[in-house]
Amino acid sequence: MRSVGTLYGIGVGPGDPDLITVKAAKILAAVRIVAHFRKRGAAGHAWSIARPHIPAEARELALEYPLTTEIPFTEDGYIGALSRFYSEASGNIRHLLEAGQDVALLSEGDPFFFGSFLHMYERLRGAVPIVVVPGVTGMSGCWTAAAAPIALGDDVLTVLPGTLGEDALAAKLQATDAAVIMKVGHNLPKIREALAAAGRLDEAILVERGTMEGERVVRLSEAGGATAYFSIVLLPGCKGRRIL
Amino acid sequence: MRSVGTLYGIGVGPGDPDLITVKAAKILAAVRIVAHFRKRGAAGHAWSIARPHIPAEARELALEYPLTTEIPFTEDGYIGALSRFYSEASGNIRHLLEAGQDVALLSEGDPFFFGSFLHMYERLRGAVPIVVVPGVTGMSGCWTAAAAPIALGDDVLTVLPGTLGEDALAAKLQATDAAVIMKVGHNLPKIREALAAAGRLDEAILVERGTMEGERVVRLSEAGGATAYFSIVLLPGCKGRRIL
Repeated sequence: MRSVGTLYGIGVGPGDPDLITVKAAKILAAVRIVAHFRKRGAAGHAWSIARPHIPAEARELALEYPLTTEIPFTEDGYIGALSRFYSEASGNIRHLLEAGQDVALLSEGDPFFFGSFLHMYERLRGAVPIVVVPGVTGMSGCWTAAAAPIALGDDVLTVLPGTLGEDALAAKLQATDAAVIMKVGHNLPKIREALAAAGRLDEAILVERGTMEGERVVRLSEAGGATAYFSIVLLPGCKGRRIL
Repeated sequence: MRSVGTLYGIGVGPGDPDLITVKAAKILAAVRIVAHFRKRGAAGHAWSIARPHIPAEARELALEYPLTTEIPFTEDGYIGALSRFYSEASGNIRHLLEAGQDVALLSEGDPFFFGSFLHMYERLRGAVPIVVVPGVTGMSGCWTAAAAPIALGDDVLTVLPGTLGEDALAAKLQATDAAVIMKVGHNLPKIREALAAAGRLDEAILVERGTMEGERVVRLSEAGGATAYFSIVLLPGCKGRRIL
């Protein structure tokens, strides 16, 4: 009788390969199949981060998103295509596991904090053994790169998607001590308006490619109108009154 | 001329020693003075986590909090004593750095996400070279331990201190998709009331000592009235509609 393999959900951290955990590095050194998501034609971001920890003899299983251009998340066609893609990809991985092989599936940042791994996890949990290895989040990498402690003492921290409407964003930004805004990209002009409406534009920091090559940290009020996909806006808490 | 040493602010992660980053492990293997905070008479939590990565010949610099019992954070005497303690401790570390020695200062979780490191950082930044190494946060360790993905898609995640008043907590819990409540301890009964008032008690998970020995994951509605200091309450987002 052949035993079922284990799926390892590996958080690879924010970008610097050395910001992967010791546990993740040990698993990658031992597992013979390493799966990761990538856009068609691209190297794969999680793969690039984990690369130095993956033995040359490991098999790469690239899971390629069906679409290369960004179309609205709410489009039915887009959601349907992605859903089929995740089902097919999880089926492929399940097949390998049931053949007795262990599989590591890479995840940028932390596997349980946003990201594609969750669509696979929800399809496979209960059916196969899964071990999740938490990672340093992209936002931790960004506030470290910006030398901007994010929260202290009794701070409230709110993590917001840049996809929210301007009014909703402004209301949330007004009601929190600290904030992290993800999914910035083409939402940057709207995010800037929301910060201004909340009276907090001067506090905001834009971090592009935190802990990665090409890292850029700039006051949002001095940034241009465009930014990269791997961008995060930070509104640090840690006001003076909380420093003892 | 003797050059000034570097202060390394090391995030040691949530509890499992293997959840430290490769970068942190490399620095700990090389630095000869390792400082950490602890309560008087206790082993020191960050020290215990990092221990397997610290060479036997490294010098331990234990920074002992002046008070062993928990008194309200708002008491003037408490704040004054802590403030003097941080100033003295940062002075000691600065003295070592100016003597040309590198010092690693351990921090549970991530150094820039709550915690005592920030009181030292604010005193020393600009005066000496500081390198901060981000870590896996305690909350990441907890949601991984609970097998509870915390956020997905366009979820809003709010990180709340359990020290907030019941009404403020309830309002914040009602206005967010996902939440993490820190500083639980003796605030547990109030937190339970706030969750009930927000209509979200059934979703809440209590995690004690996530990724550590003695880890316990329980539905908050079925938990007792008391909990350990290293406890976190999770309100996972990732509602079905966000799984594609």
